[in-house]
Amino acid sequence: MTAILSEFELIARYFAPMSGEGAFGLLDDAAAFTPRKGCDLVVTKDALVEGVHFFPHDPPDAIARKILRVNLSDLAAKGAVPRGFLLALGRGKRQNEAFFEVFAPALAQESRTHGCVLLGGDTVKTGQAFFCITAFGEVPTGRMVRRQSGEAGDALYVSGTIGDAALGLRLRLEPDSAWAKALLPNHRDFLLDRYLHPQPRLALAPVLLAHASAAMDISDGLVGDCDKLAAALGRTISIGDVPLSDAARAALALDASLIDVILTGGDDYEILAAIPPGKEMRFIKEALRAGVPVAKIGQLDSVGTEKTWLGPDGRPRDFARRSYTHF
Amino acid sequence: MTAILSEFELIARYFAPMSGEGAFGLLDDAAAFTPRKGCDLVVTKDALVEGVHFFPHDPPDAIARKILRVNLSDLAAKGAVPRGFLLALGRGKRQNEAFFEVFAPALAQESRTHGCVLLGGDTVKTGQAFFCITAFGEVPTGRMVRRQSGEAGDALYVSGTIGDAALGLRLRLEPDSAWAKALLPNHRDFLLDRYLHPQPRLALAPVLLAHASAAMDISDGLVGDCDKLAAALGRTISIGDVPLSDAARAALALDASLIDVILTGGDDYEILAAIPPGKEMRFIKEALRAGVPVAKIGQLDSVGTEKTWLGPDGRPRDFARRSYTHF
Repeated sequence: MTAILSEFELIARYFAPMSGEGAFGLLDDAAAFTPRKGCDLVVTKDALVEGVHFFPHDPPDAIARKILRVNLSDLAAKGAVPRGFLLALGRGKRQNEAFFEVFAPALAQESRTHGCVLLGGDTVKTGQAFFCITAFGEVPTGRMVRRQSGEAGDALYVSGTIGDAALGLRLRLEPDSAWAKALLPNHRDFLLDRYLHPQPRLALAPVLLAHASAAMDISDGLVGDCDKLAAALGRTISIGDVPLSDAARAALALDASLIDVILTGGDDYEILAAIPPGKEMRFIKEALRAGVPVAKIGQLDSVGTEKTWLGPDGRPRDFARRSYTHF
Repeated sequence: MTAILSEFELIARYFAPMSGEGAFGLLDDAAAFTPRKGCDLVVTKDALVEGVHFFPHDPPDAIARKILRVNLSDLAAKGAVPRGFLLALGRGKRQNEAFFEVFAPALAQESRTHGCVLLGGDTVKTGQAFFCITAFGEVPTGRMVRRQSGEAGDALYVSGTIGDAALGLRLRLEPDSAWAKALLPNHRDFLLDRYLHPQPRLALAPVLLAHASAAMDISDGLVGDCDKLAAALGRTISIGDVPLSDAARAALALDASLIDVILTGGDDYEILAAIPPGKEMRFIKEALRAGVPVAKIGQLDSVGTEKTWLGPDGRPRDFARRSYTHF
């Protein structure tokens, strides 16, 4: 088995079979792609770097799923239906034939599951591997759910549970900490899995399109992402109302300081949405029908009012570090 | 002056001012973008890595222009008009405030010149810097100029001159070689500039749309790119007809072995096009009117015939290495 494939062999063997209409078998300089009539294209781009966004020895299939899913998560938050993606692949030493034998089938399966076909890309050599995806989705014309279009009085909702992935990452970085050692194995496995396998909330996309005044995916931590969504508006958020998994509750019981990791650590890939008062009941009902639990954590207030996080004791608190930052 | 900007400051200060309609001031997870009625979107993605595609100490403005231009070159070859782009930016140690003070104005100017607005992107931390651009262009519906749609009997044309950038790169890698030292300063400057500042042939795009049966940009070397365009078809190409600059001719006179660098080195960002016999005169005329010199280098032959490069002596020759390869 040769470890080094040429760029041509790599594309022909692993990527051409999963390419879609308009990709011309990945044998052209570009793809032709057009949204359906009555639709706008929603485009998003996320890059993941080895040693920054994933561990060098993470399983190749987990890396494949994660790079596509973090982009699908952005599309879901915008109310969009996935259609296609481009992949730029920075190959480091580890991205050899054995890597692609596992990576490519997982990416192909993920692509099929979400109806998001490979349209093209680029492969380059680098020291530190990276994967850069541009994903395309569709929304009805003019209907993309914006991030900063919420209004004072709108309720703030999140999907799923918050902080699991950030705790999972902490378990990998500090496996010998007291709370990590005391955690039950099933809780530990749950948190590690939430870090390794994000689940984009695509089932929530049509519900957001119908009812949300604003939405975004929570990727950099709930606290900082609430800042981004609220922008100049005030907001009141009750920490006690932030939905936590049993595993996160168990971790918190072992070490109360982990609340900061939970609220600012990021990698949740859950949805944060602003819902106007008259639409809350329908939003909750349709989210549940779509299989996505949602929880109200607070509300947007008028411009110039406080940006308050209420602790479980009812008193405001602040955070030293509001979100994950690369720099 | 602080050397390290936060991701937020970087985007707000340098990139938001050059963002276009549908980018929402780069304050959203995604952009909304839709081709005009009657048009298909043409999408292409190229990644450039520090130390692979550009030198770590290349001027930041040259890097900015190059990363956009190599993508615009793909759009030009497809007959497309540029509309917008996404930028994923892998920041290494060198990408500090001083870097962006020079990089951003050059990218903004390049974007304005070509009517190609910034729509969004991502910034991440990395060891080895990279820039990954997805560019969007438009063609009339169904009219993208394909790469492998040429037919036997079509003439093969190239724009501009071939091999200058590859010689410029060789001058940087081997400045002490005999030919490098003997070259006149103006020839040396010309070749270095052709490497540092590729010129996408956007003026040729409408001419290709009207007359080419197939086209691609020459980025990996003329020999290998002719293989890609011709695919299963035979072809006869006359090396003596490949257009060379005065500087390349001077280099070749000093060292005849440089013909391999010229024909296989890559980074030309010229256009290779197949033109059906009845359209050659109009193609040449309209290309000249668009200010782009074009030259006939050979033709496509039927499937199963030879893949021949005729040397200046009229005898066939082959190449040990047919194109630039990353792996």
